[in-house]
Amino acid sequence: MDRDQILLTPGPLTTTLRTKKAMLKDWGSWDADFNQITKRIRSQLLSIIHGHDDYVVVPMQGSGTFSVEAAVNSVLPPNGHLLVLDNGAYCKRMATLTNKMGRKATLLSFNEREPVSPDALKKALISDASITHVGLIHCETGAGVLNPLKEISDICKEFNVGLIIDAMSSFGALPIAARDIQFDALISASGKCLESVPGMGFIFIRKAILESMQGNSQSLSLDLYDQYQYMEKTGQWRFTPPTHVVAALAEALNQFEEEGGQPARLARYKDNCKTLVNGLAKIGLEPFLDEENITPIIVTFLAPKYDQYDFKSFYNAVKEEGFILYPGKLTEIETFRVGCIGAINHKEMRQVVASMKYVLEQMAVVK
Amino acid sequence: MDRDQILLTPGPLTTTLRTKKAMLKDWGSWDADFNQITKRIRSQLLSIIHGHDDYVVVPMQGSGTFSVEAAVNSVLPPNGHLLVLDNGAYCKRMATLTNKMGRKATLLSFNEREPVSPDALKKALISDASITHVGLIHCETGAGVLNPLKEISDICKEFNVGLIIDAMSSFGALPIAARDIQFDALISASGKCLESVPGMGFIFIRKAILESMQGNSQSLSLDLYDQYQYMEKTGQWRFTPPTHVVAALAEALNQFEEEGGQPARLARYKDNCKTLVNGLAKIGLEPFLDEENITPIIVTFLAPKYDQYDFKSFYNAVKEEGFILYPGKLTEIETFRVGCIGAINHKEMRQVVASMKYVLEQMAVVK
Repeated sequence: MDRDQILLTPGPLTTTLRTKKAMLKDWGSWDADFNQITKRIRSQLLSIIHGHDDYVVVPMQGSGTFSVEAAVNSVLPPNGHLLVLDNGAYCKRMATLTNKMGRKATLLSFNEREPVSPDALKKALISDASITHVGLIHCETGAGVLNPLKEISDICKEFNVGLIIDAMSSFGALPIAARDIQFDALISASGKCLESVPGMGFIFIRKAILESMQGNSQSLSLDLYDQYQYMEKTGQWRFTPPTHVVAALAEALNQFEEEGGQPARLARYKDNCKTLVNGLAKIGLEPFLDEENITPIIVTFLAPKYDQYDFKSFYNAVKEEGFILYPGKLTEIETFRVGCIGAINHKEMRQVVASMKYVLEQMAVVK
Repeated sequence: MDRDQILLTPGPLTTTLRTKKAMLKDWGSWDADFNQITKRIRSQLLSIIHGHDDYVVVPMQGSGTFSVEAAVNSVLPPNGHLLVLDNGAYCKRMATLTNKMGRKATLLSFNEREPVSPDALKKALISDASITHVGLIHCETGAGVLNPLKEISDICKEFNVGLIIDAMSSFGALPIAARDIQFDALISASGKCLESVPGMGFIFIRKAILESMQGNSQSLSLDLYDQYQYMEKTGQWRFTPPTHVVAALAEALNQFEEEGGQPARLARYKDNCKTLVNGLAKIGLEPFLDEENITPIIVTFLAPKYDQYDFKSFYNAVKEEGFILYPGKLTEIETFRVGCIGAINHKEMRQVVASMKYVLEQMAVVK
């Protein structure tokens, strides 16, 4: 029997035993005790962005993509036009789900190695007055690039267009403050930098646009307006919540606060990232991105330049050593990815570097 | 400190500690070990309906309603017409979500105390040739009525219209066999009679209609065709699965098989139901439905005829004794509901009867 593996994947990720143990209890979804958990989570989430004055937060069942779809379906009116700033797979997914619901989405595409360009956005908004909303992925985990939140938000405000931010993999680690930026919707999920288990997302919505959302959604399940109204009225989720997942998130949020909130979490992830990148550099593994574009969330590495390398064998051998890696998501270049997030610190990063070194030596020897 | 309460609610419900303990491990959603769990669950689910030859099963993130919406969105074509046989709240919800996605749904309404009528369906199909699909709630937990699955299925086959069955609260307990009935889609969820935690559903789909589903869904997240194709190709879920919820379901399914499958589960629930109904009869609490319409899933009781009775006080007092009840879902008559499902048996039923007796005596004394 092996110990449980450490997940170095960008969600699901490694959670603490304390978080998982919160799932050892069954909750009545109608009961006041459970409603209290939901209420406290919502308040804690709003505190993270200092958003109590101008924003609400609505939890949503399902994976992160369900919450992105819920946000677009509920915020973008049927006759709206969403311009998605595209530098990777998750950007394309946001446009795809918008088109699929019969609404207009256009991609403004950039090199996936670099952040999207605020200037290009400005030009697009000047040249196409039909654009009503902008879609932005804060940290595009396809390659791991961080996009310029503040600049994009300022431009959207200036041009009076809505902004929908997918902050799935950045929320809780990278700074996002309602006093610095303005958005219509910002989306994240339980199983990312809050270090809980997957199964629910949450969407921050600007109070000023709440009433304009009524009737937009053509999905009953994913209607954020209805979910919000029902929750305000009853304290309950509209449809059965994943009670154990919600309880785990509550416990994960307590640990988040105990650790020192977002600044402390970012500091730990930066330390993880540095330990990883420096360690792998010593064994000849180089990041795909230029150093200034690397984000301490997930790092894409170029595959080792061995003839006998293939990802599957490498993955399996590293897994045997106790670590779960993540495949690359680029079509043209062979890469693999390593998450810096989760209930791990520089110790695990040194250990996985040592394990990769061992595995690559074995692969070379086998040759 | 109190012991954890016993849930007598129709999902979330009381699960075994063994099921919950399966959530004490983090799984990589991309990893082969996790794919194996998904594969085994799908096979076990198909075995329950003896459906391996003619059906597939597709798991879906979210609550049961998400899976119902996914089924309608993916099975009913945009120009289809769904006739929902209506004897309660969940029937109305199926029609609502269909209309909301811009597709045609009509309600054929019946008394909520009684099963829907196969004859009335026949007449409706004869008089309206535009109906392409029929929607049926197997056990309508609004009042707890069981609807005639076999008769409705036979009529749909005879008239060559599709059948979408919401078997949320019946699957695993009441007999449903692919050799006896035919349907296009049949939906249930993890947190019901399989006695696992909430957070995912699953939809059985008839192989013969699979290809006709392509392109129907206007929701990316809820597209069963895409979810199915991706899972067949990769063994993975399209979007992040609720890994801990999936692991819990796997463990719950093992216990389901160990107990003796559906017949054994039904026998236990029948025993629970009988103990409950007989026990409450002795303290003057009568079921809302006639005896022949009571299903051993959830039983609706008329509120005690005391002037000083109110559901909230009763609920809170019974909760203090260790049991979580469920409110009624009827608009005209004051009722409460008690679930017979979950990891409980006649012992818990005798205990809750004794607790209700104690509470009602206290309420009467207080007067």
